[in-house]
Amino acid sequence: MTTVQHEEHHQVATVGDGGGLQPGTAPPEVDFDTSPDRYRHWELAVDGEVATVTLRVDEQGGLVPGYELKMNSYDLGVDIELYDVVQRLRFEHPEVKAVVMTGGLDRMFCAGANIRMLAQSSHAWKVNFCKFTNETRNGIEDATEASGQTWIAALNGTAAGGGYELALACEEIVLIDDGSSTVSLPEVPLLGVLPGTGGLTRVVDKRHVRKDRADLFATKSEGYRGDTAVQWGLVDATVPKRDWDQEIGRRAAQAAAGSSRRGDRGVQLTPLDRRVEQDAISYPYVTATMDRAARRVDITVDGPAQPPPADAAGVLEQGVDYWPLAVTRALDDLVLRLRTNEQELGTWVFRTRGDTELVLAHDAQLRELADHWFVNEVTLFVKRLLKRLDVTSRSLVAVIEPGSCFAGLLLELALASDRQYMLEGAYEDVDPEAVPAAIVLTAANDGSFPMGNGLSRLASRFWGHDADLDAARGLVGEPLDARAADEAGLVTMALDDIDFSDELRIVLEERASLSPDALTGMEANHRFVGPESLETKIFGRLSAWQNWIFIRPNASGPDGALRRFGSGQRGSYDYRRV
Amino acid sequence: MTTVQHEEHHQVATVGDGGGLQPGTAPPEVDFDTSPDRYRHWELAVDGEVATVTLRVDEQGGLVPGYELKMNSYDLGVDIELYDVVQRLRFEHPEVKAVVMTGGLDRMFCAGANIRMLAQSSHAWKVNFCKFTNETRNGIEDATEASGQTWIAALNGTAAGGGYELALACEEIVLIDDGSSTVSLPEVPLLGVLPGTGGLTRVVDKRHVRKDRADLFATKSEGYRGDTAVQWGLVDATVPKRDWDQEIGRRAAQAAAGSSRRGDRGVQLTPLDRRVEQDAISYPYVTATMDRAARRVDITVDGPAQPPPADAAGVLEQGVDYWPLAVTRALDDLVLRLRTNEQELGTWVFRTRGDTELVLAHDAQLRELADHWFVNEVTLFVKRLLKRLDVTSRSLVAVIEPGSCFAGLLLELALASDRQYMLEGAYEDVDPEAVPAAIVLTAANDGSFPMGNGLSRLASRFWGHDADLDAARGLVGEPLDARAADEAGLVTMALDDIDFSDELRIVLEERASLSPDALTGMEANHRFVGPESLETKIFGRLSAWQNWIFIRPNASGPDGALRRFGSGQRGSYDYRRV
Repeated sequence: MTTVQHEEHHQVATVGDGGGLQPGTAPPEVDFDTSPDRYRHWELAVDGEVATVTLRVDEQGGLVPGYELKMNSYDLGVDIELYDVVQRLRFEHPEVKAVVMTGGLDRMFCAGANIRMLAQSSHAWKVNFCKFTNETRNGIEDATEASGQTWIAALNGTAAGGGYELALACEEIVLIDDGSSTVSLPEVPLLGVLPGTGGLTRVVDKRHVRKDRADLFATKSEGYRGDTAVQWGLVDATVPKRDWDQEIGRRAAQAAAGSSRRGDRGVQLTPLDRRVEQDAISYPYVTATMDRAARRVDITVDGPAQPPPADAAGVLEQGVDYWPLAVTRALDDLVLRLRTNEQELGTWVFRTRGDTELVLAHDAQLRELADHWFVNEVTLFVKRLLKRLDVTSRSLVAVIEPGSCFAGLLLELALASDRQYMLEGAYEDVDPEAVPAAIVLTAANDGSFPMGNGLSRLASRFWGHDADLDAARGLVGEPLDARAADEAGLVTMALDDIDFSDELRIVLEERASLSPDALTGMEANHRFVGPESLETKIFGRLSAWQNWIFIRPNASGPDGALRRFGSGQRGSYDYRRV
Repeated sequence: MTTVQHEEHHQVATVGDGGGLQPGTAPPEVDFDTSPDRYRHWELAVDGEVATVTLRVDEQGGLVPGYELKMNSYDLGVDIELYDVVQRLRFEHPEVKAVVMTGGLDRMFCAGANIRMLAQSSHAWKVNFCKFTNETRNGIEDATEASGQTWIAALNGTAAGGGYELALACEEIVLIDDGSSTVSLPEVPLLGVLPGTGGLTRVVDKRHVRKDRADLFATKSEGYRGDTAVQWGLVDATVPKRDWDQEIGRRAAQAAAGSSRRGDRGVQLTPLDRRVEQDAISYPYVTATMDRAARRVDITVDGPAQPPPADAAGVLEQGVDYWPLAVTRALDDLVLRLRTNEQELGTWVFRTRGDTELVLAHDAQLRELADHWFVNEVTLFVKRLLKRLDVTSRSLVAVIEPGSCFAGLLLELALASDRQYMLEGAYEDVDPEAVPAAIVLTAANDGSFPMGNGLSRLASRFWGHDADLDAARGLVGEPLDARAADEAGLVTMALDDIDFSDELRIVLEERASLSPDALTGMEANHRFVGPESLETKIFGRLSAWQNWIFIRPNASGPDGALRRFGSGQRGSYDYRRV
């Protein structure tokens, strides 16, 4: 791997900068798809309207060697299963209206992210791990808010660190009153890092814990239980063992009764049809080819081959083969794989290929049948996929050429990109007769897929320019050629054949030559204008601080708290405040 | 210094973690007060309602050795003068309603922060430098919005990087049309870091530049000029040389005409009466004693000795001796000195001492005479001081004891703190007859000093608990003893004599033992609940990313872009995206 040579002259980065776990060794290639029959850490049981999700971590089931997952602590592998659980409950179980998350161990619900795993992990691995786990917790909140599947944390034992943060993602938190079980965020006092999956933000901004109490809580390693935990808002209730099952059942039934979720037959998330080669990953409708020398991935998304089914029954019949879902599943998997397994490929170039009318027909159907649970789930999944792109630390470039079909939900890929390049006319030396590219805005671009800041990508694009936003809204449904798209402000640059290829080549070469860190910070700042939310705070403020802390010697240096954890020695700190 | 030993075993931190400039050497002790007769870099000229502030940097005038301030580039010393300019214009020049900021060199307005200075600086120095410069730019915006002093950037030459960010802090940006002068943010492409003083945020969130254009701009080292700069919103106008003076004059006159600022006689900001000893810094009304072994500063603020003057004329007569201004000037200076010169003192403990009634009388006067320009300026300065505390990377603890006067504006010091400890009753072994401490809320706590997020500290405290906020509002004006304050949620803990001293000792010892980095990140997340603003984005999202980038080898390692700048070699990057 070309990365090895970098290890040597970047000696400052002996810790925290290897590609995978254990700096200097090749990172493992991670698969993000699994299924219940392969779970090692979670049990999923469905009983009518209520599902119970039980965490019982296989201590020997770590994703990579070097640590044991004791006390229901987790690593990326455990979280990949949880992501699968959340997705399957939404797609395969329309009848489930409440989800109880609990633990399979006695007195310990979950001890959070495994510390030995963190201690041996590279900086990049830690950061990527936190991002994925954050996305999954946001998905739990999205299921509660948008799918009528209310998640309830039934803490049958102590929830520490990431364990409590799992609970924070649930709508209700119930803690067993057994005289010993607590909720806690011991990261600051014990590990010298922040709770990495939204804990600080959710404590003050979601649970509305007073900030001085939040300060006490986040510096008190043993945490709180009982009246204090309830009074401060850290949990909703504590319940004695004898009433436990009844109270959890009551809360689940109550949440289910309030749900508007309707549906009888689920859609099985059958295994992805994915082909991985040395320099390519392909799925039906999605192909990615990797140019390692150029540090670039070219991603092509194909439009549908057929018109959409006539009605909801037909859509349900297609299931995972319904084009919007098939495309989204493939892209979601691709994004996760590229982020984790292909760190050097810093630029992702999106193209589309296909029949715009067929894209528009599917796009319209998502709104026409929006009341149908399955169609709703597909739309929400597209939303989550696009949010993943928004927080992806890669430069995203859309290339709009003849034969493309950037319309509606596929146009979102372009709007999510950092830049959009559109060809005027045709490539004279390829196919001078080709129909020039056109893009089409639909109502989907104006609200179906809000970003983390609550704005559509269209509204984000024209933030502060209401007249331009209104003008763009007036173009909904109209095919816009390069000049029209440029005039409407929907593309970065419209160039004719003579300039296009040269310009694009230079742009991509230049981009690939810039500091990957500076680009990551720049993109994270540019992509989210205007209002902020819990989500943008977690991915912006919290994650940025955590990344800084992760790379500081006080956490990850040879004598830092993370590295010394479990050795009996506390971290040795340089006490100067920065 | 005790810090030296840390240099050795934190070998990861050979770059970026020394205490001052040039890692391993003792940091210089920095003074933050100056006056026009001592300026080396700025010229201040007042002509009626319009002031002109000209940047003409003394190349040999760097604050520390090792670099030349060529091309109007700046270091902390240049920015300390600018801060003084901003403050003096507000207090000494009530007649000034528009401020033109321009440059004294030909074709180069300002090249931004000096790169050699940054390259040789420790991580802590870079971070602290950016924080102070950000605060000064926010102060320029505050002068425009709240003081009726509209700042206009008259870019008579290229404004690059921090030079353009200076302009972004102004209400209007006018660029000379001389065929060569541009505005640019070359940090990402040339230095591998972010523009550090709000550039990315202000470009998209203040100037509303479309995000893909912002992306082009921030990666194009030579920047833009002319029509593009105007059309994209990077500047408000370009003006040919022949029309320059007239157009700038016209804009300044127009801004002045729209100002509601009224006042004829200014208040001279005479030199601070400050006494610096080995372990203490004292001013009239403010004393700080440093316990280096405990890594703590104890700060005591004295209330006024006399009732306030009877009217505005009397207030103006007192000038810098007007108690609210005297206290604020002293605390502002102290905060800046401690942040820069005393990095190891991680906990600041605030106490007050004095007559609550006299504090309340001054507090009430700030509102009664709010329409008077000088009283308004004092209130705005208190606001800015408190905002400095909010973004200070130190743990803040308020201790409320008999003899204290935490009321109104002084209570804000407690509300800005991470925790508030209040003694119930008296210290039996000191003065058993002492009158127990009481705190008093005033209308000031409910809106005079909004935080960066736009909320009062009271509203931030009760975010999500409207009933508690309303209840607290109902207590305005009432002395609240420890129990009442605790019940109202205004203090973290109310303890009697038997427990108080032990608890406080343990709390401060524990705090001093924790990771300074984790505390900084935790506090930055807890202090700003609810809404976000340009300011909170700059200090939260942008600064956190910048801090991360600053410490990464791609910027600050031996082969990083910052270190190699000017060597003819580009930075050698590890291209893996994190």
